[in-house]
Amino acid sequence: MTTMLQSTRGTRATGTLHAYAVSCGQRPGPTAQGLPDLDVSGRPLHAPAPDLERLFHPRTVAVVGASDAEGRPNTGITRQLLGWAERVGARLFPVNPGRRKVDGLRCYPSIADVPDPVDLAVLLVADPLPVIEQLGEAKVRFAVAFASGFAETGPEGAAAQERLAEIVSRSGLRLMGPNTNLNAFERFRDDLDGPAIALITQSGHQGRPVFAMQDLGVRLSHWAPTGNEADLEAADFIHWFAEHPEVGVIAAYVEGLKDGRSFTLAADHAARRKVPIVMVKVGRTEAGARTVASHTGKLTGADDVVGAALRQFGVVRVEGLDELQDTAALLARAKPPRAEGVAVYSISGGTGAHFADLAGAAGLPLPRLDEAKQAELHQWIPPYLSVANPIDNGGHPVGDWRGRKILDAILDDPSIGVLICPITGPFPPMSDKLAQDLVDAAESTDKLICVVWGSPVGTENAYRTTLLGSSRVATFRTSRNCVTAVKAYLDHHRFVADYRSPFPDVPRTLSPSALKARPLLRPAERLSEHAAKQLLRAYGIRVPREQLVTSAAAAVRAAALVGYPVVMKASAPQLGHKTELGLVRVGLTSASQVRDTYRELTDTAAYHGVGRLDGVLVCQMVEPGVEMVVGLSHDELFGPTVTVGLGGVLVEVLGDASVRVPPFHARDVHTMLRELRGYPLLEGVRGAPPADLEALVEVVLRVQRMALELGDEIAELDINPLMVLPRGQGAVALDALAVCR
Amino acid sequence: MTTMLQSTRGTRATGTLHAYAVSCGQRPGPTAQGLPDLDVSGRPLHAPAPDLERLFHPRTVAVVGASDAEGRPNTGITRQLLGWAERVGARLFPVNPGRRKVDGLRCYPSIADVPDPVDLAVLLVADPLPVIEQLGEAKVRFAVAFASGFAETGPEGAAAQERLAEIVSRSGLRLMGPNTNLNAFERFRDDLDGPAIALITQSGHQGRPVFAMQDLGVRLSHWAPTGNEADLEAADFIHWFAEHPEVGVIAAYVEGLKDGRSFTLAADHAARRKVPIVMVKVGRTEAGARTVASHTGKLTGADDVVGAALRQFGVVRVEGLDELQDTAALLARAKPPRAEGVAVYSISGGTGAHFADLAGAAGLPLPRLDEAKQAELHQWIPPYLSVANPIDNGGHPVGDWRGRKILDAILDDPSIGVLICPITGPFPPMSDKLAQDLVDAAESTDKLICVVWGSPVGTENAYRTTLLGSSRVATFRTSRNCVTAVKAYLDHHRFVADYRSPFPDVPRTLSPSALKARPLLRPAERLSEHAAKQLLRAYGIRVPREQLVTSAAAAVRAAALVGYPVVMKASAPQLGHKTELGLVRVGLTSASQVRDTYRELTDTAAYHGVGRLDGVLVCQMVEPGVEMVVGLSHDELFGPTVTVGLGGVLVEVLGDASVRVPPFHARDVHTMLRELRGYPLLEGVRGAPPADLEALVEVVLRVQRMALELGDEIAELDINPLMVLPRGQGAVALDALAVCR
Repeated sequence: MTTMLQSTRGTRATGTLHAYAVSCGQRPGPTAQGLPDLDVSGRPLHAPAPDLERLFHPRTVAVVGASDAEGRPNTGITRQLLGWAERVGARLFPVNPGRRKVDGLRCYPSIADVPDPVDLAVLLVADPLPVIEQLGEAKVRFAVAFASGFAETGPEGAAAQERLAEIVSRSGLRLMGPNTNLNAFERFRDDLDGPAIALITQSGHQGRPVFAMQDLGVRLSHWAPTGNEADLEAADFIHWFAEHPEVGVIAAYVEGLKDGRSFTLAADHAARRKVPIVMVKVGRTEAGARTVASHTGKLTGADDVVGAALRQFGVVRVEGLDELQDTAALLARAKPPRAEGVAVYSISGGTGAHFADLAGAAGLPLPRLDEAKQAELHQWIPPYLSVANPIDNGGHPVGDWRGRKILDAILDDPSIGVLICPITGPFPPMSDKLAQDLVDAAESTDKLICVVWGSPVGTENAYRTTLLGSSRVATFRTSRNCVTAVKAYLDHHRFVADYRSPFPDVPRTLSPSALKARPLLRPAERLSEHAAKQLLRAYGIRVPREQLVTSAAAAVRAAALVGYPVVMKASAPQLGHKTELGLVRVGLTSASQVRDTYRELTDTAAYHGVGRLDGVLVCQMVEPGVEMVVGLSHDELFGPTVTVGLGGVLVEVLGDASVRVPPFHARDVHTMLRELRGYPLLEGVRGAPPADLEALVEVVLRVQRMALELGDEIAELDINPLMVLPRGQGAVALDALAVCR
Repeated sequence: MTTMLQSTRGTRATGTLHAYAVSCGQRPGPTAQGLPDLDVSGRPLHAPAPDLERLFHPRTVAVVGASDAEGRPNTGITRQLLGWAERVGARLFPVNPGRRKVDGLRCYPSIADVPDPVDLAVLLVADPLPVIEQLGEAKVRFAVAFASGFAETGPEGAAAQERLAEIVSRSGLRLMGPNTNLNAFERFRDDLDGPAIALITQSGHQGRPVFAMQDLGVRLSHWAPTGNEADLEAADFIHWFAEHPEVGVIAAYVEGLKDGRSFTLAADHAARRKVPIVMVKVGRTEAGARTVASHTGKLTGADDVVGAALRQFGVVRVEGLDELQDTAALLARAKPPRAEGVAVYSISGGTGAHFADLAGAAGLPLPRLDEAKQAELHQWIPPYLSVANPIDNGGHPVGDWRGRKILDAILDDPSIGVLICPITGPFPPMSDKLAQDLVDAAESTDKLICVVWGSPVGTENAYRTTLLGSSRVATFRTSRNCVTAVKAYLDHHRFVADYRSPFPDVPRTLSPSALKARPLLRPAERLSEHAAKQLLRAYGIRVPREQLVTSAAAAVRAAALVGYPVVMKASAPQLGHKTELGLVRVGLTSASQVRDTYRELTDTAAYHGVGRLDGVLVCQMVEPGVEMVVGLSHDELFGPTVTVGLGGVLVEVLGDASVRVPPFHARDVHTMLRELRGYPLLEGVRGAPPADLEALVEVVLRVQRMALELGDEIAELDINPLMVLPRGQGAVALDALAVCR
């Protein structure tokens, strides 16, 4: 296990994913026994699973750089740790060669002098590098490094961080930081029950609002301020938190991920254990990504790729910290839904209509209650009010015994899993009783009850005492956050119910396709259309019958072989935009047309200064279908990715494309296709036949296989267009472009 | 003025916009002196402007149905009014034939017995209809009717409401309600300064959160709970509020509008007076629209049309009540921006990066501060922190005199109009001082300062006392609301600076085009393609040269006249989907092809059972361009609307279209086009030439003219496709469909 761990970390420490490809290239076949479990690209198939118990709950803590000199920052930190150690019953050992005592405790000159085995060393020294080896020799298990000045400061700092990572990986200890703080040792409330939020943040300030949820009665079990992640990264904490039974949700504020694969493995682990992850991920905008780079030195990856990876593994992405708070609190505490239907209940028809409109627009299902249920509700609600859903009680029934009856009747409906009650503000005769009824009803149901408290003030009794005092009612200050959180709740449970990890099915060995295709690659070069199509052919992707010819006479012979009518195209490695340059001719039906066209194409190419042609492609004409684009790219964070989109001008103008990070299943490809705005084109519009979806999915899966096997050697592959023919007739790659790395 | 008012209201009371068209048809030319000012469609060009001062501030109030019997709802309302009258110094007259005294006050048997002129009658009676005439005779100026059971209950109630409206329009008084309440006479704080929010709501509960903003120090000047709007409608209040100097913003919760034109005229009035309107408009979803109908009996209109009308007149549409609160409060109080740039300032690089990412994604401009400004900031901020914008101070400078210096330096930058400081939560040593510095800085600048307070608790001193205590700092609880409000603020001021009302330019008389086109219309019928194209031709919209023929020989003659190559199409009034049925043939180059095609088309039409053809169209072939769709439809609320979209399969599959409510200017058409996702196609992609935008705009304006002149007689007109040729070459309507009303 240690070997595997170190090997993986060693690979990552080189800093580029290209290393995977190199190791892949050298590995001849199935893994030998005892070697780490890697896929065909050389990426790990299992995440290392560090046991972090003694990081969060150390029995013994050494404070390296401890101080009690007034006015020094280290003194404040030392005292915070002293207070914390006393609270949790840990033993604390100050370490500082310049002192004999710190705040009355004996101070040791070095870590080697500390008499007991040390679980955790807190490093307050400016340069942690020289200390790490001593810690390793002393068998210290964990260290937390506060020092800044590493990757967040630029290339020099990044180099220092890489040296730090190397020393750590040799030392046997695990490091949190550098550039981190004491957040893991804050004062957690231990009087709260139920599933907790475990928090991961790459910036201490950004975790503060979630931490403060404890003041509203929401339990927090851990806080991992991961800092620069020279060693331990967000993925390690996700993995470990997901195994903790008290953790109901993992909330994360992430600026950049350290490694795409380790993150997806951790998210996969959480999905399999049905533990939701709610994440703010900065980097929606270029400016945001740049700012992050300057702040933490982290890679952000292309945002659409990050977003896709999050979706693939069911991670709930939110935008603001308030959404992180509210969504995480809901997901942590709510039991799985017993039905997907949402009921909107209010004391005003306007409030119900408005909220139902917002909920419906966000995609929440609001089933119409059946006639029997409506009749039951009308026992207590006047007949002229609508109770079909939204349910408007008109106000008065809330004031007496009917209020609770109505709630129980709604909750008893088998189509309803969630009841949302927007309360626009305090109107004590009604809202106090309504709040209490909601809290009481929540005690006797497994179904989710949500309240949106609309008053801006927030000091009202019904809000602050009754609603926030309940751990079973989810209370929101904005309708949007309520809708976002409830949607995330329903989506999460639907996702994990169907989830199947893609990792067990990833190929571990090269396919015959890869062995055929690899000789076609030319490092750092762009392949000609013909060569790119041979690559596709190696992977069993259909291309038109075609021949590359270098004379008019050969063109005529080729046309006879591929069969009339034919298409002719100029072919050269550096040649893009062939259509715009007039270097593609379609529908040629005779030998004389072919002969003339050969000359015209070579003349036109010469006119445009195209340079030496490989020749001219004579291709079979393919009947019309739906033009798609299927591509393979390389993301700095996740490595090879696969994209599918609507072809032609549409993908360029409307950007209607969907991306995934391998590995993924066929059904993920169906999800990708349904994400396309132009999806109906594949189903057939205006009398067109439905396209061969299965053939399209198969092409995407074959490109995924190529991405897994050769993706680190290919910078870019574009099939554009892939002509998807009517159902049952397949799909043909009419043109392709490939650039090697 | 009274005549005009009544005439307009009389027209509206008929309940359909079609009435406009009828009156238009009867009106022979320019308006005679003294007649109401109407456009060519018969819709008013000026809004009636009722003086509502004595509705909100009556000196004398009669309470019809007053009671002091314990336990009756009218008693509670009477007592609320008594308390209110005492507070504001109004005289109150109870009216009730069954009582001599009410709470010690003399009670009058009828309104006629009240000794003084009455400004306002509050009607607590179940049926207000019989009372209205008495009020009219007594010259009462305003009435507020509480009774429910009108349009919100169904067709019978709607009929009763129409009767009520008719009686009111004859009576000379103005009515608020029915189905309203006492919100207009709530307790408004009179100790707050500065521009106020004026509030309009169609549901009392939904106004409660905005009203509660007073508890946070935000001034509220009026609250109009408009109820069912049998007479006075939201538009009347918008108009009147826009003229009040103390009103800084109009905040509205609207479920359905009563009349499209009266609303756009009111919004136009507010835009010209630079008074922002912030509105929640229910009806995003079908379900929401249906619920509204059952709740208030109002029409909601098609949501995309409502949305377009709001955009046209600069109304800020928001979703939740919390957004309404926050956006309205900001727009009411902030001075016009002195620059459009936004600076993000924080005590943590992570917080700044995250907020800048959210702000950038929402389209807020975050200019990079110039080198001189950065050097200035680095006097107080350590050199390793980024101050380019976002500005990260690292925390420490906030604790001393540097904090204020930094703020002043940022505010002093000429590129910056807004400073946003996200504070993730209370950290008293820093956040208390930071909050105070922000409040102090706000006192000495005209620029906008916003704070996002991230803590979920909301009882902290820095938040509740310092920040909320300032009327100059805008404080938000969610980053999204801050970003939404700041965007609305910048957009509003940009909009009003450029605003030019479209109403002065609306035609008042029929054009020669209309006189030529009208005889082509066939009430309730669908026109043939040929007739629809004649309609276009009447409006000067180019169509291909074409002839309708009924024999093969005539087809050959026609082809010679329009010029080869030709297109041939079967033509019949009820014929859609011609292409899918094989009833269109293109690129015919010879007489024999034309002759054969004539027979094939008639055979194919017979095979499909198309019924009697008008004949076959022989049309000029038009060179390729960008295919667009331009259409005219009829909205239940706004009447004729004009749509433009990308043609072909795209508008159907992607719905990439943009709609406007006439009247609008040419520059609005340019905005419509830029709203299209496929707009780059018009600019020319992949080597295609830019399309003739001016010709496209001209076609849209001509369709607008048709919408204004004949829109109430046309249910639907679709030009599909309009082939927009390369710049300078015009646009040609290749096919058209028209359905008359």
